Amino acid sequence: MERKEKLNLSMLFDFYEMTMANGYFRTGMQERITYFDVFFRRVPDGGGFAIAAGLEQLVDYIRDLHFDEDDIAYLRGKNLFQEDFLDYLRRFRFTGDVWAVPEGTPVFPGEPLVTVRAPAGQAQLIETFALLCVNHQSLVATKANRVVRAAQGRTVLEFGSRRAQGVGGAIEGARAAYIGGVHGTACAATDQIYGVPAAGTMAHSWVQMFDSQYEAFRTYCEIYPTNAVLLVDTYNTLKSGVPDAIRAFNEVLRPQGITKCGIRLDSGDIAYLTKEARKMLDAAGWETCTISASNSLDENLIADLLRQGAKIDCFGVGERMITARSEPVFGGVYKLAAVEDAAGNIIPKIKISENVTKITTPHYKKLYRFYGNDTGKAIADYMTVYDETVDDSSSLVIFDPDATWKKKEVYDFTAKELQVPVFKGGRLVYELPSLPQIREYCLEQVDTLWEEVKRFDNPHKYYVDLSQKLWDVKHGLLEKNG
Amino acid sequence: MERKEKLNLSMLFDFYEMTMANGYFRTGMQERITYFDVFFRRVPDGGGFAIAAGLEQLVDYIRDLHFDEDDIAYLRGKNLFQEDFLDYLRRFRFTGDVWAVPEGTPVFPGEPLVTVRAPAGQAQLIETFALLCVNHQSLVATKANRVVRAAQGRTVLEFGSRRAQGVGGAIEGARAAYIGGVHGTACAATDQIYGVPAAGTMAHSWVQMFDSQYEAFRTYCEIYPTNAVLLVDTYNTLKSGVPDAIRAFNEVLRPQGITKCGIRLDSGDIAYLTKEARKMLDAAGWETCTISASNSLDENLIADLLRQGAKIDCFGVGERMITARSEPVFGGVYKLAAVEDAAGNIIPKIKISENVTKITTPHYKKLYRFYGNDTGKAIADYMTVYDETVDDSSSLVIFDPDATWKKKEVYDFTAKELQVPVFKGGRLVYELPSLPQIREYCLEQVDTLWEEVKRFDNPHKYYVDLSQKLWDVKHGLLEKNG
Repeated sequence: MERKEKLNLSMLFDFYEMTMANGYFRTGMQERITYFDVFFRRVPDGGGFAIAAGLEQLVDYIRDLHFDEDDIAYLRGKNLFQEDFLDYLRRFRFTGDVWAVPEGTPVFPGEPLVTVRAPAGQAQLIETFALLCVNHQSLVATKANRVVRAAQGRTVLEFGSRRAQGVGGAIEGARAAYIGGVHGTACAATDQIYGVPAAGTMAHSWVQMFDSQYEAFRTYCEIYPTNAVLLVDTYNTLKSGVPDAIRAFNEVLRPQGITKCGIRLDSGDIAYLTKEARKMLDAAGWETCTISASNSLDENLIADLLRQGAKIDCFGVGERMITARSEPVFGGVYKLAAVEDAAGNIIPKIKISENVTKITTPHYKKLYRFYGNDTGKAIADYMTVYDETVDDSSSLVIFDPDATWKKKEVYDFTAKELQVPVFKGGRLVYELPSLPQIREYCLEQVDTLWEEVKRFDNPHKYYVDLSQKLWDVKHGLLEKNG
Repeated sequence: MERKEKLNLSMLFDFYEMTMANGYFRTGMQERITYFDVFFRRVPDGGGFAIAAGLEQLVDYIRDLHFDEDDIAYLRGKNLFQEDFLDYLRRFRFTGDVWAVPEGTPVFPGEPLVTVRAPAGQAQLIETFALLCVNHQSLVATKANRVVRAAQGRTVLEFGSRRAQGVGGAIEGARAAYIGGVHGTACAATDQIYGVPAAGTMAHSWVQMFDSQYEAFRTYCEIYPTNAVLLVDTYNTLKSGVPDAIRAFNEVLRPQGITKCGIRLDSGDIAYLTKEARKMLDAAGWETCTISASNSLDENLIADLLRQGAKIDCFGVGERMITARSEPVFGGVYKLAAVEDAAGNIIPKIKISENVTKITTPHYKKLYRFYGNDTGKAIADYMTVYDETVDDSSSLVIFDPDATWKKKEVYDFTAKELQVPVFKGGRLVYELPSLPQIREYCLEQVDTLWEEVKRFDNPHKYYVDLSQKLWDVKHGLLEKNG
């Protein structure tokens, strides 16, 4: 089978995007200006907020959007499209506008994480990839942030490549985990491509390759005296693993005056074993030796281990973070919010559903976050029609869009628009932040949330309210189409 | 940030593979011949068997294994490696042997899906990618096979790209779903690259783009008269969706004599709505119109819908299959099974663990499947030491390796070796089957399993036994190291 040398990501679309794009083309609608929002409906794991991520890969994709001749040939072979449409694809570039919430921002259900304003054919075709990027990385960043918060300041490393769902699951997954707050990864490719610090020491096979565990440890310390983290559970952690490690540290590191070293456990009862190992290390004068643990960890197990007094300095978190095992889907959707008529009037559109939670909020919108001036904490988010402005110099009454009698007056606050312009007329107008900047911004912004919103289970609901004008538009359309 | 034009998958390794490879190099062990097995410990979702997949991508990776100058430069920058080792990497190619179970084979816990015999440095470095490939695709193929069996012969399409975990999650995920038995995918890239038939029609946005639903339907039928599957749930499925679809079929398709068409539902109570829609379509003379459903489906919901008499011809299955949502990790591991000494003697190695289920089966092994000559059904699998041969011309007493008093005599059977040679001395010696061949082989082989093994919940345990000789080796090592 012939394989393309380099995958053209523009071909990663659900086929109906193309049948619809062709339909728009055939009916002369392909240039009609449309507005689409990416939003999600619920936070995974019952959490109080999610972390937006994946924008950089979406930007890369949009900049490179094009169809090569072999792509055209493939599409011709489907016997669905005429040559004039294939010609249109040959010249296909993205010419629209994109606004998005910066990566690392805590976000809430119903909010437009990305808004696309583009000719119908273009806006339709990018749906699949936009969702794939945002869904995947927001999922992992959100999960990683939970894990990092559970570790209460201890180091968390991403160890999941071998259990990731494919190459992108591993590489961009580790990128997203870093945004969510992990300190590094085992994945070399993620370090090489994105600069997420990668590190690693040994597996059980290293220990098994030698005639004795002690010899394996001593040899490792000799080769990597300043980076010696020894895996102590190949045979028996407390009977031979920790004693052999101490002996290797004593014989190789101590004479060189090196005090930095570590042990790692990957099986057994981590709470009991780390407490015992800590005592043994301390008794041998290795108080500086760190203890890493890495057996099927997630935020719940980490919190439990710490409650039980486990002595762990560093958590290696694998499959349960890289796949977001407890809830491996971030249900972001891409929905039409408005179209422009020939005169440029913006006509809001709604999608009604028998499932009430699937009803969309129509129109070209703005998204604000209100921060209390006294505390710096986030008070509520607020969606308006695009032409409204929030005056944060006076107070404002907001209301729950589902229970409109629940009103709240906000005052002494600063309103910040959450979306930033990313593309304007097809041109990138956003300076992509570096990955460490994104990570820092994420941790800062999570700090603006009240602890009640950050609770792992049954968190306090953060308000995402609609302006009166937007609420009126939505309910007008519901009455008309319901 | 500078990005590489094309990702070198050889860089997708957990960093410890490289620190260990360097360690083997520094101690002169890098050429020592090692044997590693890929195996898994339990079937996801409590199923009775898994479907092996991912070998083709592992083969591609091994054939391309190399380090470019920019990879070397990246590694030099870590300040862990000396120039002679970097030089070794510069010349690095795979020179070993690989055996594997063909893709599409039903497999059971503890069995070597892949066995690698190679110099230590090489065998170590491929660990991460080998596991990533096999874990990801076996996970999705296994899940897809459950979904396809639940659909009882009805069409199942893979719809999950937008919720997949990254690009590979989508593209290779859809490939794996096809191996497991789905009939096609929405993902164009998977069609273009792997030839999995892709198809699609319309989303809600198509309907919303028109002034009326009927106009959207009529236009679609005009453009795609032989491929008209109309999404009927944008507003109200039974009040307007199905009636508008029937009107469009009547006005556009009937005059052309076209009887092939379809409707699709993506929300609401699928059982009730499809039964009602079926009646309406039949009453209007559209008995040939198929009904597709696609709302958060998996094997359990499909089985339930069919039990309730839902009228569905085609299931579109998205996030719950592409991420294997109910259990999104296939826990394959890569463990040292043996090493060769200087004289070429094969020395079995074991990994003992405080978790008994994590103990490995040592040695360079062979894997047999016994088929009953009368029924053609698989009776049991049987692992032996590499130099044993099973004589299936007479009967054989096998025993449960965990409960050795449980014995069973097998007779009138054919023993088939499950692993095939894939690489010999670094050279590919395996003719990769086409994807349709793999899919067909999978469905055939699943047919060799008894229905009791195929039960979704609490299936009958299929036996994977050890030969007496292999059992003796394992227990000898346990006694010695335990």
